[in-house]
Amino acid sequence: MFDKTYLTPAEALTVILDKLPRQVPHSETLRIEECYGRIAASDVVSAENLPGFARSSMDGYAVKSADTYGARETLPAYIIVYHEVFMGEKPVFEIKAGEAAKIPTGGMLPAGADAVVMLEHAQVVSETMIEIMKSVAHGENVIQSDEDIKKGSAVILKGRKLRAQDIGALAGIGITSIEVFKKPVVALISTGDEIVSSRDPVAPGQVRDINSFTLAGLIMEEGGIPHKKGIFRDDYDTIRNAVEEALVESDMVLVIGGTSAGIRDMTAKIIDEIGKPGVLFHGVAVKPGKPLIGGLIGDKPVLGLPGHPAAAVVSFNLFIGPLIRRLTGIDERMEFKKTIIAVMGKSIASAAGREDHIRVYIEPENGELKAYPILGKSGLITTLVKADGIVAIPASRLGLDQGEQVNVNLF
Amino acid sequence: MFDKTYLTPAEALTVILDKLPRQVPHSETLRIEECYGRIAASDVVSAENLPGFARSSMDGYAVKSADTYGARETLPAYIIVYHEVFMGEKPVFEIKAGEAAKIPTGGMLPAGADAVVMLEHAQVVSETMIEIMKSVAHGENVIQSDEDIKKGSAVILKGRKLRAQDIGALAGIGITSIEVFKKPVVALISTGDEIVSSRDPVAPGQVRDINSFTLAGLIMEEGGIPHKKGIFRDDYDTIRNAVEEALVESDMVLVIGGTSAGIRDMTAKIIDEIGKPGVLFHGVAVKPGKPLIGGLIGDKPVLGLPGHPAAAVVSFNLFIGPLIRRLTGIDERMEFKKTIIAVMGKSIASAAGREDHIRVYIEPENGELKAYPILGKSGLITTLVKADGIVAIPASRLGLDQGEQVNVNLF
Repeated sequence: MFDKTYLTPAEALTVILDKLPRQVPHSETLRIEECYGRIAASDVVSAENLPGFARSSMDGYAVKSADTYGARETLPAYIIVYHEVFMGEKPVFEIKAGEAAKIPTGGMLPAGADAVVMLEHAQVVSETMIEIMKSVAHGENVIQSDEDIKKGSAVILKGRKLRAQDIGALAGIGITSIEVFKKPVVALISTGDEIVSSRDPVAPGQVRDINSFTLAGLIMEEGGIPHKKGIFRDDYDTIRNAVEEALVESDMVLVIGGTSAGIRDMTAKIIDEIGKPGVLFHGVAVKPGKPLIGGLIGDKPVLGLPGHPAAAVVSFNLFIGPLIRRLTGIDERMEFKKTIIAVMGKSIASAAGREDHIRVYIEPENGELKAYPILGKSGLITTLVKADGIVAIPASRLGLDQGEQVNVNLF
Repeated sequence: MFDKTYLTPAEALTVILDKLPRQVPHSETLRIEECYGRIAASDVVSAENLPGFARSSMDGYAVKSADTYGARETLPAYIIVYHEVFMGEKPVFEIKAGEAAKIPTGGMLPAGADAVVMLEHAQVVSETMIEIMKSVAHGENVIQSDEDIKKGSAVILKGRKLRAQDIGALAGIGITSIEVFKKPVVALISTGDEIVSSRDPVAPGQVRDINSFTLAGLIMEEGGIPHKKGIFRDDYDTIRNAVEEALVESDMVLVIGGTSAGIRDMTAKIIDEIGKPGVLFHGVAVKPGKPLIGGLIGDKPVLGLPGHPAAAVVSFNLFIGPLIRRLTGIDERMEFKKTIIAVMGKSIASAAGREDHIRVYIEPENGELKAYPILGKSGLITTLVKADGIVAIPASRLGLDQGEQVNVNLF
């Protein structure tokens, strides 16, 4: 069944990525509160130091460290305390030799002081005198004024997907809006004379559109904006018009369905006839998802996806996800795919010469996670609803053994 | 430094979870397009079968299977073909003994037929006659009318976090809106005389509010709605009023900061004096994050978080995240925490008797992922910006060895 001339999924993806121009996506400036999960469109350089002044990292006494040298429990150093540092205030006094000031964690180090003695290493002798039982080195228990962020340094690099703490760092240096890449728009064209909207009643022979809902969710997870064009009849002119319209409005076009060979051939013909370079591959050595069509029209990827729900999801993971990520401007070197390690709870066979992507559900058993294959036709949406993730069986293997450790790509 | 009487993080979390009433969150009805990532508030039962009619899973010929018994290449079965099935249409004819109809993948099986012969196992002899070279069993190459979803069965269970394919399944059975749990609102009260807004200039001694931006992002990731109350002076009445107001508006209250002991004690006093049961623990055997205060006022968790950015994030992962998840109504048995496996690139020491949560960055090296500890005070936001995730060192261990395999909780 599997033609040896079909590309592997990795080869097929490379064919498109290599021909996809590395243009920079458009950017927009947003308030940082709106930037969680967005991609930085430029390096963000700090105009100031953080914290901006030397601070104590402990509750204690700000001192000249030289005054504490040699201090120990049996021979404490006696220091005079005239002043106290208050949170949020700049001390108006200066620490002179033999003097200290009480200071809270986070308080600003007064002029003249270069270290902080922890509260538990000091003892109050009188209203203006303490004993110090332990020496401190220059800079000890002090956060230097540029220790967190140096003025002029890049806090966020272009291409970084902004996480909660990245937004926190921007707030910390007073940056309230930044430039992020615009999200790529991915058009969804559902085809098939048997497909009706989820809002409409179905007659015998008809089924409701499932794939545009599944794919829309996956597109959003990858940082794209789904643009549902609707459901179109299996007719050359109708679908060609929809693709041409979508190419104007979107950064990428997905033509979904067509479960039968004739419609897939029509999709390939449309991609080839609208523009160059056209179809780059037609069919991939993977199950499910073999009938995938991949192409480019100008600089926009156009893919023809099989209509079976599980095949559409596997095609998404292998091709559409990586293509969307390229269009988002994300620097993938900064990203790690989240997976879990599980152990196969059951053996499963696979044909050689193709990658098999099997849906699995996970059961915790005796302290380890067991992955059980979900058998069922790729046309069944419930195989995906029951699944927790997907395990790939390489083309070189004839299956996976019970007890074998596998990586599960979680949904 | 670590008092043996401090609870471990797991014990401390249990103390709150055990006392937190298991009330059901409020729900709302939304269109399925708005439900990606939301939590189902009730089981969703299908009112219809999916696909709703017997369909072909192949391009081929719909037949009575009995007519093909014994058919092989050397002795094909001759069958009459009068009709063709079209996508989306109910066939108006019936298959009688000795007859077949051409059928596309996804086409509705005509009355009288019970199996489909694949196109490649049939050969056209004349306009109305084919040879069948391979027998098919009853039901072969057919998706039965209730094979994907049975009428009356639960497609989605209460507590399920709805993924792309779950929304697809709902669309497939014509369900266009469902009941989901309302998101819990988590109030953020920033305290500290040294804290100013990220929009304002800072004077010496002052720092901008970082934690409310970091925590707001983490709250959204866990399915909550952050409600920033603002920055409040370190004053009993001011903070008590803010907490009381927040308890009316929110499902959970976080009082952030206070890096010094005095302010933490004030927060504990406020929690105890507003209502019962009050403070449940004060301090946890974990680094960073030791000064955490955990309590309940009525059925609402109120936590006092340390002001150091890294400590706030570790406290979030250990306590606030799990508490928010409880409030969302999610059924955690259906969830798996996404982590990656890496190998320590460097040894790191840890004190016994406390859990150490170290920030790490990940480097791919020779085909494996290496985790390198990020050293630096927990007061520095950049230690989190540089980090890809967190590795926990159990209280029983004195550190991690270079080359040791670890689970990294990715940010």
